[in-house]
Amino acid sequence: MSTLSANTKRHRVTVVGSGNWGSTIAKVVAENVLEFPNLFESEVQMWVHEEQVTIPKSSPSYDPASELCTKEQPLSALINTVHENVKYLPGIKLPDNLVANPNIADSVKGSTILIFNLPHQFIKKACDGLEGHIVPFARGISCIKGVEVSQKGVRLLSDMIGERLGIYCGALSGANIASEIAQGKWSETTVAYDPPAVDSRHPTPRHSPTTSSTNLGMTPANGEKIKLQALPSDYPPLSHENMKHLFHRPYFHVRIVSDVAGVSLGGALKNIVAIAAGYVDGLGWGDNAKAAVMRVGILEEVKFGQMFFSTVKASTFTSESCGVADVITSCMGGRNFRCAKMATERGVSIAEVEKNELNGQVLQGTTTAKEVNDFLSSQGKEKEFPLFTAVYNILQGKNKPEDIPSLIEVKD
Amino acid sequence: MSTLSANTKRHRVTVVGSGNWGSTIAKVVAENVLEFPNLFESEVQMWVHEEQVTIPKSSPSYDPASELCTKEQPLSALINTVHENVKYLPGIKLPDNLVANPNIADSVKGSTILIFNLPHQFIKKACDGLEGHIVPFARGISCIKGVEVSQKGVRLLSDMIGERLGIYCGALSGANIASEIAQGKWSETTVAYDPPAVDSRHPTPRHSPTTSSTNLGMTPANGEKIKLQALPSDYPPLSHENMKHLFHRPYFHVRIVSDVAGVSLGGALKNIVAIAAGYVDGLGWGDNAKAAVMRVGILEEVKFGQMFFSTVKASTFTSESCGVADVITSCMGGRNFRCAKMATERGVSIAEVEKNELNGQVLQGTTTAKEVNDFLSSQGKEKEFPLFTAVYNILQGKNKPEDIPSLIEVKD
Repeated sequence: MSTLSANTKRHRVTVVGSGNWGSTIAKVVAENVLEFPNLFESEVQMWVHEEQVTIPKSSPSYDPASELCTKEQPLSALINTVHENVKYLPGIKLPDNLVANPNIADSVKGSTILIFNLPHQFIKKACDGLEGHIVPFARGISCIKGVEVSQKGVRLLSDMIGERLGIYCGALSGANIASEIAQGKWSETTVAYDPPAVDSRHPTPRHSPTTSSTNLGMTPANGEKIKLQALPSDYPPLSHENMKHLFHRPYFHVRIVSDVAGVSLGGALKNIVAIAAGYVDGLGWGDNAKAAVMRVGILEEVKFGQMFFSTVKASTFTSESCGVADVITSCMGGRNFRCAKMATERGVSIAEVEKNELNGQVLQGTTTAKEVNDFLSSQGKEKEFPLFTAVYNILQGKNKPEDIPSLIEVKD
Repeated sequence: MSTLSANTKRHRVTVVGSGNWGSTIAKVVAENVLEFPNLFESEVQMWVHEEQVTIPKSSPSYDPASELCTKEQPLSALINTVHENVKYLPGIKLPDNLVANPNIADSVKGSTILIFNLPHQFIKKACDGLEGHIVPFARGISCIKGVEVSQKGVRLLSDMIGERLGIYCGALSGANIASEIAQGKWSETTVAYDPPAVDSRHPTPRHSPTTSSTNLGMTPANGEKIKLQALPSDYPPLSHENMKHLFHRPYFHVRIVSDVAGVSLGGALKNIVAIAAGYVDGLGWGDNAKAAVMRVGILEEVKFGQMFFSTVKASTFTSESCGVADVITSCMGGRNFRCAKMATERGVSIAEVEKNELNGQVLQGTTTAKEVNDFLSSQGKEKEFPLFTAVYNILQGKNKPEDIPSLIEVKD
């Protein structure tokens, strides 16, 4: 543990979001702050998008004799009473020092660390509610998978949040299925945190001192665009070591890197790879072929990252949980994989599987494949990403899954 | 295709070995030599360890009216008649230009390319039979997985072969299940080929000009130890490009690298990783945990390679079929994985599974885990390889599978 007796203040942590993944991360950090009282305040706030719920009979908190169980209650009040998110993370005991708060502005009062963990489509509204209420020198970590890709460029969600709120925002991503982590089943993750040095006291980031930015100039690094406020010297530094203390658990191993763009891209691009793996598995081609698709996919992720972001490191994809491990997990049993496999086995399109099996819900991977293809073709780079392009063309009906080997073959 | 009109000679190819994997590789190269008549002679020899066989009724070559099917025949003669290895690769049509030969000395007569593909324990005897009969400037490729590890050092099988025969020997390894490749199901492999430049005409290897050697001085590079003979200038050069032409098929994608040690180590060390993956899967910890074990395992492979071999590149493990893809395949369904999983589910030792399910046959992974541990502990390096060491200690009964996360945890 660090010796930080010189720091009189402690970091206060808020998790913005309380779904399945949000509640899981909130559990993790609420456990950790108690282990590092020199670094963190013992109370962790969790913003809850309020709704009325009843405790289901299957919940360990259900007690037919209790009035709590017979009528609808606000979710936040229930969490604070029974210490279980009965709706989104049922069956998991949450730490007593985790406080649910339905008032977003109040939930971040005095917090120097903001962990964003809510569905993509709610980011904007959450930022609206936060604006003007956050500590100006707060630092963020986005646990939201995905990036925004358009013909104009690639935009990291962490950058969107950071720019909107005028703070630095890193990212967390890995081979992480929330419910397994909540149950304490072991897994790993990657945290990317690399704020520019805004004061001399701030610890130097381990790798590059600049944050991520596309080469296209659409998404300048938030550290360049916004004027970051230095962390006052009476707070413990937010070094890689201290960031690790916030997230690392015996059942949730954390590696900290500086490559925010790489970590964010891994969480998005793996969905395209998972569709490709589902295609070849659906053809019954065996584990060799599935492993080959994963390998090729990881290398296309590296190429994509390094082509469009100056700071991306190959090792983020080849050696970290957010890269290789997330590809593997997604290609073993993720939703994109399973739907692509089912479509191939049945000889139908993925669109048909989305319609019939997912009630029309669109897979992350099909959206990302299209967005990435739009972007790559706008850059004239489609041919340099034969696997990503193959997935797009199969989705479009221009190719078939059995064409994948010839589409990605490098003859010379 | 290369323009090689200046070369008057063509390479003659022999596959030394005709088991399941040997016959599969022989099929691949026999198909390829016909596509590159400027580079290779059209006939490929395959040495067959002779035995008497009958054609099984399940074979497509079985014809009750034929005399061939009613009595025992020499395997080599049968292969040359029915173009099927009815015993070791039944059901697969072998090319007509592949000639089985029971005489090992005769099979390599005039051959400039020798592909070694036979069980580990037969290497010595095969080399005995070859000595004095091979073309002095021949080049070898070993498709035999594994390395020899003892307390004294790590010895590559390709080096053993090369030193014994006085030739350069590269290696082929990847996520390759022979029967799938034989059926034309798509997969990838890695060929490592990096002979030292013995004459000015020989194309410069793409990467390091030295071959592999352990830092321990036990296994000097065969290029240093033996006096390699230059390939005469009337043969097409054995460049990476031409080596690729020999192995690459539409269903068998090849990447050529220079890192013979890395390619060889990948094929051996992945068996330890597969045991670890079987342990955590047997505990029911889910895909996150399994992917985490694979990620950690790949990084220990890199560390092991770079610590003991000066020429090993990290990318051989993180980016090539012989590394990441072979780990993935082995951890999805290989024998080591399945036995470790079964042992954990039943709460017994792997030794018990070996005894009861494999008739006492010992898994590659348990042997390798022990050999690698003996070597690492002789070097005082056990702690730097926590996953390899954990597998060994679990095999020894000193730890349990559920200890893996804490044994490999990096807290700082």
